[in-house]
Amino acid sequence: MPYINIKVTKEGVTKEQKQALISGATQLMVSVLNKVPSTTFVVIDEVETDNWGIGYDQVSVLREKK
Amino acid sequence: MPYINIKVTKEGVTKEQKQALISGATQLMVSVLNKVPSTTFVVIDEVETDNWGIGYDQVSVLREKK
Amino acid sequence: MPYINIKVTKEGVTKEQKQALISGATQLMVSVLNKVPSTTFVVIDEVETDNWGIGYDQVSVLREKK
Amino acid sequence: MPYINIKVTKEGVTKEQKQALISGATQLMVSVLNKVPSTTFVVIDEVETDNWGIGYDQVSVLREKK
Amino acid sequence: MPYINIKVTKEGVTKEQKQALISGATQLMVSVLNKVPSTTFVVIDEVETDNWGIGYDQVSVLREKK
Amino acid sequence: MPYINIKVTKEGVTKEQKQALISGATQLMVSVLNKVPSTTFVVIDEVETDNWGIGYDQVSVLREKK
Repeated sequence: MPYINIKVTKEGVTKEQKQALISGATQLMVSVLNKVPSTTFVVIDEVETDNWGIGYDQVSVLREKK
Repeated sequence: MPYINIKVTKEGVTKEQKQALISGATQLMVSVLNKVPSTTFVVIDEVETDNWGIGYDQVSVLREKK
Repeated sequence: MPYINIKVTKEGVTKEQKQALISGATQLMVSVLNKVPSTTFVVIDEVETDNWGIGYDQVSVLREKK
Repeated sequence: MPYINIKVTKEGVTKEQKQALISGATQLMVSVLNKVPSTTFVVIDEVETDNWGIGYDQVSVLREKK
Repeated sequence: MPYINIKVTKEGVTKEQKQALISGATQLMVSVLNKVPSTTFVVIDEVETDNWGIGYDQVSVLREKK
Repeated sequence: MPYINIKVTKEGVTKEQKQALISGATQLMVSVLNKVPSTTFVVIDEVETDNWGIGYDQVSVLREKK
């Protein structure tokens, strides 16, 4: 019954990449912990770059600096 | 002081249904644990069906298969 | 496929009360949103009263004042 | 390595206010716990007022009553 | 800068299994999204079986029935 | 009505430090967003160093290497 929550910045994650995250995270639970896939949930949260900070700064500002 | 977070797929939950979830979850805290409603928070997250996976698959894909 | 997370202070919640929270929250998803119980998760977090704050103060301190 | 998640209602929080929340929360980890800013994450979630409840009611309804 | 939270029931997950979950989840972020490992966090929560419910029931009770 | 969740490794955070985190996070909400302290929640989660990973590694292992 695992529940996996993946939070990433909202920067163009495609539907195919989301599918790859879901199947990869589910497979990890099966391989490492022998969990049942049919009751394994994966929820992806995409966070605006203005709303994510690291090292005092907004990611949106860090991206502009690069 | 309970905090309840409800995550569901974003598939047309109405304002009235959200109100019913909030009042029902709050009442549950009062009935079972004798908590105070005025400091009981309920937060509902609606998750895109591309972003929710179960049994290796995106819910958006599962919905199409049905 | 709902996921419900209930956070309460760790103050002697019994196994029976936890069961009542789980069944009540699951029933709420069925009644309001017509969700399927077999893929409805409820996770209860019990938080130490030193680790929960409201109105600037630790709950452990608020409990002593009463 | 702290992770701080701030949930507030979505009611016009500006980019500058978000920056102030990020830098203030990061500074708090440095001042109180001597944590390293470069591995301190702050994630802000803005929640629709229909989706946040307190005291049985949706915040959107409470705002109209005022 | 991904943040991955894995919630599983507290049923004897070993230190080696936790390491495998952490490295596997980090690798998934690198492979699928080209993320940087040094700012990828993985947090594992182990939840008591009394505190996790599925299909109206506590996992602790479901385990006894088996 | 903000809700702030602070996750740190479980490495001897004192009751006084927890109080400082709670009052500091609450004050941040008041100063930046003009929020009401009496309905501002702060919840601190202390995570075992085996259960927190960064850059592929468990924090418990990183601490031993230092």
